[in-house]
Amino acid sequence: MTGIKEKLLPLVAPDLEKIEVALRNNLTPHLDLVRETAGHLMFAGGKRLRPLLIVLSARICGHEDAFVSKFASIFEFLHTATLLHDDVIDGATVRRGKPVANAVYGAPVTVLTGDFLLARALNIAAESESMRIIKVVSAMTETISQGEIHQLIKKGDLNFSEAEYMAVIRAKTGVLIQGACKTGAILANANEAAEDALSAYGDHLGLVFQIADDILDYTADTGELGKSVGADLREGKLTLPVIHALKNASPEDRARMAAIITNTDFTREEFDMLLGLLDRYGGIAYAKDVAAAHVRKAKARLTAFAPSQTREILEMMADYALNRRA
Amino acid sequence: MTGIKEKLLPLVAPDLEKIEVALRNNLTPHLDLVRETAGHLMFAGGKRLRPLLIVLSARICGHEDAFVSKFASIFEFLHTATLLHDDVIDGATVRRGKPVANAVYGAPVTVLTGDFLLARALNIAAESESMRIIKVVSAMTETISQGEIHQLIKKGDLNFSEAEYMAVIRAKTGVLIQGACKTGAILANANEAAEDALSAYGDHLGLVFQIADDILDYTADTGELGKSVGADLREGKLTLPVIHALKNASPEDRARMAAIITNTDFTREEFDMLLGLLDRYGGIAYAKDVAAAHVRKAKARLTAFAPSQTREILEMMADYALNRRA
Repeated sequence: MTGIKEKLLPLVAPDLEKIEVALRNNLTPHLDLVRETAGHLMFAGGKRLRPLLIVLSARICGHEDAFVSKFASIFEFLHTATLLHDDVIDGATVRRGKPVANAVYGAPVTVLTGDFLLARALNIAAESESMRIIKVVSAMTETISQGEIHQLIKKGDLNFSEAEYMAVIRAKTGVLIQGACKTGAILANANEAAEDALSAYGDHLGLVFQIADDILDYTADTGELGKSVGADLREGKLTLPVIHALKNASPEDRARMAAIITNTDFTREEFDMLLGLLDRYGGIAYAKDVAAAHVRKAKARLTAFAPSQTREILEMMADYALNRRA
Repeated sequence: MTGIKEKLLPLVAPDLEKIEVALRNNLTPHLDLVRETAGHLMFAGGKRLRPLLIVLSARICGHEDAFVSKFASIFEFLHTATLLHDDVIDGATVRRGKPVANAVYGAPVTVLTGDFLLARALNIAAESESMRIIKVVSAMTETISQGEIHQLIKKGDLNFSEAEYMAVIRAKTGVLIQGACKTGAILANANEAAEDALSAYGDHLGLVFQIADDILDYTADTGELGKSVGADLREGKLTLPVIHALKNASPEDRARMAAIITNTDFTREEFDMLLGLLDRYGGIAYAKDVAAAHVRKAKARLTAFAPSQTREILEMMADYALNRRA
């Protein structure tokens, strides 16, 4: 599976360039500090997954238009807004290999810049003058904040179930990725079957992306990941590998894991012990299996479209979502 | 001027009741914690100024409809969202006589509940299916966050000018009050002259409200105000009374004021000394004069409408905005 990124990047490079231009052109704050704070994170090497998905989704429906990359900004702005607020909330220190915005500009400016980006995204959606797009975007925003709060409530809760985990990641991550795919179809004025297919593709892809992200928190090294490994656990955030291992562990091992999870100040040795227990109970392998099933489902939905390079790229993105190293 | 509130309240009581119902019915979060956190502030005795303004603005244009109070929620939700984020940002402890939401539910849930309310407001706007209302609401949201950041940047800046202050309060407070009046006119499908008149009324009223708020920070007592007196200054927030006094002070007095302003940990004695200096240079009297001029301008714009009880109420609201004690 290695080399997907290398294969994928040249295929989407022209789109990525247009997206970068659109992101800069549509940010338009009155204040330099807002541009700086938003830009600190937004122009620090994000993958541009969401804007790319709207461009590709519109394209696979036969729609190619300079305005697509403008509306693509909506999704990167919303994504950036949630990351800015997340980093304030989590007290994170590093993101994309750089100090987080709140460490540089302070929490107040970071919270307000997040608000600005939320508002900016909705303004761009309004400019589409499409009631459907406006409703997709505003509904997403509402769902995301509730997903984040749901996750917050469940921090440190050892009974957090797989079903609840799936509901949380769908709300906090999935709807935005799904929304990007759906919006591409709406912009293309695609028929219902095409829109449904892309919407379902986006739903599966969103789950893959978040599960993979949660796996990376245990398997990557900090340098690759651009943020601290084990950060989720340190915040008491239970993700699929841990949820699965906890469920299948012997009472003794469950107690050992619980002790580490409920102690947010665990040592490197304790973290390694936890990794050993995840391994013993197949937590990471299980999470990978779940994600792989969603990769297959995502790809299956693309068969609604005739084979094309765009379809291939979307298929590769599903593989990449699971197999990326950061 | 005493007794305006007592005169005003019975006149708007039926509207206020409908607004309370609409606020509760349109909040609709999936999670109890969101309802609790939003409700902690939103159902703690807010004045409902903004929702009331949309109801009255629609009415003066001849429009009466059960849906008006639904759209009125937009403005209270946005207002509450900004207050929740403000209190996190400012590290406030008391608001409306109660501990702030972030003190009770923590900053993370409070930030995210603010996000939810922002999104909820935009969803309700989208439900209007009126592109004009959607654009007014999303534009406001963008302006407010930038006004807040502008204010933040200028904290502790002794050269913060009156013109800049007016720009900041118009952005952070004015546009929402103006937007409520304008949206009432749009819902009523009013002609351009009526919409312009209400929009201008709202603009002046918004300035009055914020200037009065800033005056109260020096003149009220904590019990009346429901939050700490002198809080603005403690945060380095320069408002009109101080800006005017600083501009007119002798070099010695300016230096004395500067010493207090730049020391966010000033004593009660120092604060009293500052109050004395505000008095010497007529800071509060000047701010009242500026606000009173906007009260007159606000009322003047209402003459575009035939005399009616609704017009009288709107006139009284302008008086109340300046003369309220909290």
